[in-house]
Amino acid sequence: MSATPFNTWMAATQARVETALSHHLPGTDSIPARLHEAMRYATLGGGKRVRPLLAFAAGELSGAAAEHLDIVACAVELIHAYSLVHDDLPCMDDDVLRRGRPTCHVEFDEPTALLVGDSLQTLAFELLAGQAIGHPKQQLEMIGLLAHASGSRGMAGGQAIDLASVGSALNQPELELMHALKTGALIRAAVLLGALSGTPLSAEERSNLDRFAKRAGLLFQVVDDILDCTASTATLGKTAGKDEAADKPTYVSLLGLDAARAYADELRTDALDALSIFGERARRLTELADFICHRQF
Amino acid sequence: MSATPFNTWMAATQARVETALSHHLPGTDSIPARLHEAMRYATLGGGKRVRPLLAFAAGELSGAAAEHLDIVACAVELIHAYSLVHDDLPCMDDDVLRRGRPTCHVEFDEPTALLVGDSLQTLAFELLAGQAIGHPKQQLEMIGLLAHASGSRGMAGGQAIDLASVGSALNQPELELMHALKTGALIRAAVLLGALSGTPLSAEERSNLDRFAKRAGLLFQVVDDILDCTASTATLGKTAGKDEAADKPTYVSLLGLDAARAYADELRTDALDALSIFGERARRLTELADFICHRQF
Repeated sequence: MSATPFNTWMAATQARVETALSHHLPGTDSIPARLHEAMRYATLGGGKRVRPLLAFAAGELSGAAAEHLDIVACAVELIHAYSLVHDDLPCMDDDVLRRGRPTCHVEFDEPTALLVGDSLQTLAFELLAGQAIGHPKQQLEMIGLLAHASGSRGMAGGQAIDLASVGSALNQPELELMHALKTGALIRAAVLLGALSGTPLSAEERSNLDRFAKRAGLLFQVVDDILDCTASTATLGKTAGKDEAADKPTYVSLLGLDAARAYADELRTDALDALSIFGERARRLTELADFICHRQF
Repeated sequence: MSATPFNTWMAATQARVETALSHHLPGTDSIPARLHEAMRYATLGGGKRVRPLLAFAAGELSGAAAEHLDIVACAVELIHAYSLVHDDLPCMDDDVLRRGRPTCHVEFDEPTALLVGDSLQTLAFELLAGQAIGHPKQQLEMIGLLAHASGSRGMAGGQAIDLASVGSALNQPELELMHALKTGALIRAAVLLGALSGTPLSAEERSNLDRFAKRAGLLFQVVDDILDCTASTATLGKTAGKDEAADKPTYVSLLGLDAARAYADELRTDALDALSIFGERARRLTELADFICHRQF
């Protein structure tokens, strides 16, 4: 797909991931039907699929097979979807709107949403263990990486720090640690797992890819903070201005809007620099970093 | 440890599992400290460790190394601990007492308890993927088995059916499906993963072990229902009589106390019959089935 323009590639990959997710999520004809319906509601038909796109783009670095990337992309997106469902719960962010629709606990109910998040997480690991993706040892490494990125020393840990930070004054290093865990870890995992699905990279390549992945994760969050402050609820499909209203520290509240934008540019430059070692193989990743930097929603 | 009496073996194994869990749970000196403290609170210092005991006992069938069984036992117990924390949440069973202490959301807070459950689940898969246990392919099978047993077609699915069943009249097949998922699937996984940690079993042995595992899971639940109705809160360390108060269907409400006891005996006989093929290697599993059947708490 390398010769096609970025937008065409992105749309095709998003559609491919949607099909794969629909295939791997349990059907509403299987027991318990309502739980499965809610799992599908929370996962399908929305979202930018940034993490799956990163996995597919990183797969081009190592010549990974598309069928393997389907599994990796689904696993990473299932973890992301689970985290959104749990973050939206009344005891957490108490949000009613997600991807332009009622959140899972509003559309269904709170216990169902709790079980939806739990089950989406489990399904991610079931998928990743369930079919052969390269060498079994590499596959175990991928599972370990995804688990570490999702747990208390990754995404869930970042969410815990975020909760504790409401109303408190984090400095930039503290804010970066929170985001490195809360969103960065899973974005990094998406990139690394995509690349691990193909021919092993050299140590130098892997180290550069990791540098890219970390910068891209931070970039995504800085842009998210900028959009939370500048875009409308309708454009975002989720409640805008929430962080400010909740007195949550963001890059915008910490640095101001202009400096946050300058910081995003700096991260983008750094990220692209790390990719130079890969030449043309990194074309999609480069385009994707630009997309993440310049997106309007 | 085969020559020691059952009670000695059980106490030694429980202590061993406690040490392993403490070792593998993140320390309270690592960020985020409060989340890690709550994860340790929810997992350590209590519980009968029935699933770890089953894993260790099943490991004797296949000559599994104790260090491998440590990992398997921890993974299964972490899944169990996560399910208890989430089941106790206000939006689910809204329980305040567990293992004789305040439940996690009472001792800490609700968002922390949500993240504790999420993170304990993740840690189970991180552990199981993180170190070599036999052949990597066998290890992937173990991860897939544990995930399937925990998710929407296993434990979480059983919990969803349980929630939907409150106040409704389930018949015995419906009740058995619910329990086969809610508690049976994880108990079965504990047995199978324990055996998979050693030398592969023959197809006939595996089929017999699976029959045992399914009966043992059901037996555990029937006895649980009997105890919920006959034992005191102090003895159980959790609120007694809850199912009846919540108008939840149980084996006792369905069959009556005497018939439930007779059914437990029948399941025990069936379970032990399935083990006869293993001879002396199944001694611990046999003793454990007896223990599960005759326990008073």
